[in-house]
Amino acid sequence: MTTTLLFASPPLWPAYEAPLRRALDEAGLGDAALVTEAEPEAVDYIIYAPNSDVKDFSVFPNLKAVLNLWAGVEGVVGNETLTVPLTRMVDSGLTEGMVEWVTGHVLRHHLGIDANLAAQDGTWSKSVPPLARDRAVGVLGLGQLGAACARALAGLNFDVAGWSRSPKTIDGIACHHGDSGLDAVLARSEILVLLLPLTDETDSLMNAARLSRLPQGAVLVNPGRGQLIDDAALIDALDGGRLAHATLDVFRTEPLPPEHQFWAHPKVTVTPHIASETRPASASRAIAANIARAERGEPLHHVVDRDAGY
Amino acid sequence: MTTTLLFASPPLWPAYEAPLRRALDEAGLGDAALVTEAEPEAVDYIIYAPNSDVKDFSVFPNLKAVLNLWAGVEGVVGNETLTVPLTRMVDSGLTEGMVEWVTGHVLRHHLGIDANLAAQDGTWSKSVPPLARDRAVGVLGLGQLGAACARALAGLNFDVAGWSRSPKTIDGIACHHGDSGLDAVLARSEILVLLLPLTDETDSLMNAARLSRLPQGAVLVNPGRGQLIDDAALIDALDGGRLAHATLDVFRTEPLPPEHQFWAHPKVTVTPHIASETRPASASRAIAANIARAERGEPLHHVVDRDAGY
Repeated sequence: MTTTLLFASPPLWPAYEAPLRRALDEAGLGDAALVTEAEPEAVDYIIYAPNSDVKDFSVFPNLKAVLNLWAGVEGVVGNETLTVPLTRMVDSGLTEGMVEWVTGHVLRHHLGIDANLAAQDGTWSKSVPPLARDRAVGVLGLGQLGAACARALAGLNFDVAGWSRSPKTIDGIACHHGDSGLDAVLARSEILVLLLPLTDETDSLMNAARLSRLPQGAVLVNPGRGQLIDDAALIDALDGGRLAHATLDVFRTEPLPPEHQFWAHPKVTVTPHIASETRPASASRAIAANIARAERGEPLHHVVDRDAGY
Repeated sequence: MTTTLLFASPPLWPAYEAPLRRALDEAGLGDAALVTEAEPEAVDYIIYAPNSDVKDFSVFPNLKAVLNLWAGVEGVVGNETLTVPLTRMVDSGLTEGMVEWVTGHVLRHHLGIDANLAAQDGTWSKSVPPLARDRAVGVLGLGQLGAACARALAGLNFDVAGWSRSPKTIDGIACHHGDSGLDAVLARSEILVLLLPLTDETDSLMNAARLSRLPQGAVLVNPGRGQLIDDAALIDALDGGRLAHATLDVFRTEPLPPEHQFWAHPKVTVTPHIASETRPASASRAIAANIARAERGEPLHHVVDRDAGY
């Protein structure tokens, strides 16, 4: 019998159809029927998202599992008609995407790419940056994302120092901690990347005093949390010349309001919270791999604990 | 006695003084006198460049060696007054700089950074690129530079295929060769990097026929040689929509003339032959390390064969 997978989120179908078919093929499930409508009796698995139109799971008598496309399952975990296993999304792409965004923007500032893009007027003006080994980069926050970014930057020969509240050890990274360690990392970082979690202690960590400890002409890159930065102090540091640029992916209010001065500021680059997003390709691979496990009789990965709620 | 190093290229002194002093310190030669003028009897080593004002080496009775700041020694190798060893510059920074430039511009195109920079108007419009593992990158040319770039891109998870005329093997890179291999790499490369040497066979390799084999919307990145590309065919491929962009660091005529259509073309980024340049910091380290060898009584590295001329 054909295994039938009901994709229950019509708005996401255009983005997910092709990557899901490819992932199913790669997982040995090329014969499965991936559909957006089916006789309820035929449905083996439901691929679900918060905006799915399925509300009553009791109409699917042969349902084996529901696989959520998102990490958050708050919209479905309390549904009493759902009696089969529910899985949440765990996507390695979130870390990979962050590493790519951070590496790309650090290299952009290191190489002076903005100046190259602005100088397409026929003026052949050589300006060669130092090598990465002579460029000091700091990474504040050495959790999963920060450590992965620090390693990738060190792999490109950048002179990387990291900081976390408690001591950590990462090969190839000068790891600092505590208040004095923070001052040391700030004082040396020509490019500073913020990947700290938001806590009472990190809220507005980058205030006027700490921004003033950065080297003259430093660049700030923030894909962590908007609240890590005192926005007014950052504008002052840019306008006063201490900082050369800030590239920001996260903000205190998102979407960043059109009237916010970050948008028009010549020394600020806004990206719309894209550094770490679920990608259809990697999410589809996770879904297909999990269905393949179930079809082989193996336990599903990332099954939600209905009592805990996640 | 103090070891005296005569820096014999006044125009380069501002760029080299600080990095040379730092490199000498690091090499244990912090006590050496680094000068631009000296009594001829005092001079132990001359640091030389093609535009040096020293023409008669016979006035330096205690000279031990001449260290050229450039790889090319054609301006000094035939000087009959030079009877001590002459070294040429071998700078690991040339490969490192190339890897950084290529990685930075591949990530720029992969992430769509140009579009982000152009969208600073208050419009919060999310557009998330695929992960690097889902981005096919091709590298034509797998010599020292091409292989190093292919490895760095694979290290960032890009799906990298390489091509060279003769078969090569590089861990983590799908290596192709020959005419059919070239077609295979062209057909898959969303981003194509040119790092081939210039030969009769590679002159205008990227002609209209080969450009048309690239996937729709591909990006060309050329830090190799300007002659690898048929310029008119490239413009046609950009204007016709086959290619989305070309980022070019090398040209048939350099400096690229102000009136060349590459400068003003919205789908072309010109950088002024900066991908692989000798950096004062790394060149200074090479010079200092070589002088330290000589002072320890070890043979100099990269001594020029005066008969061969290089």
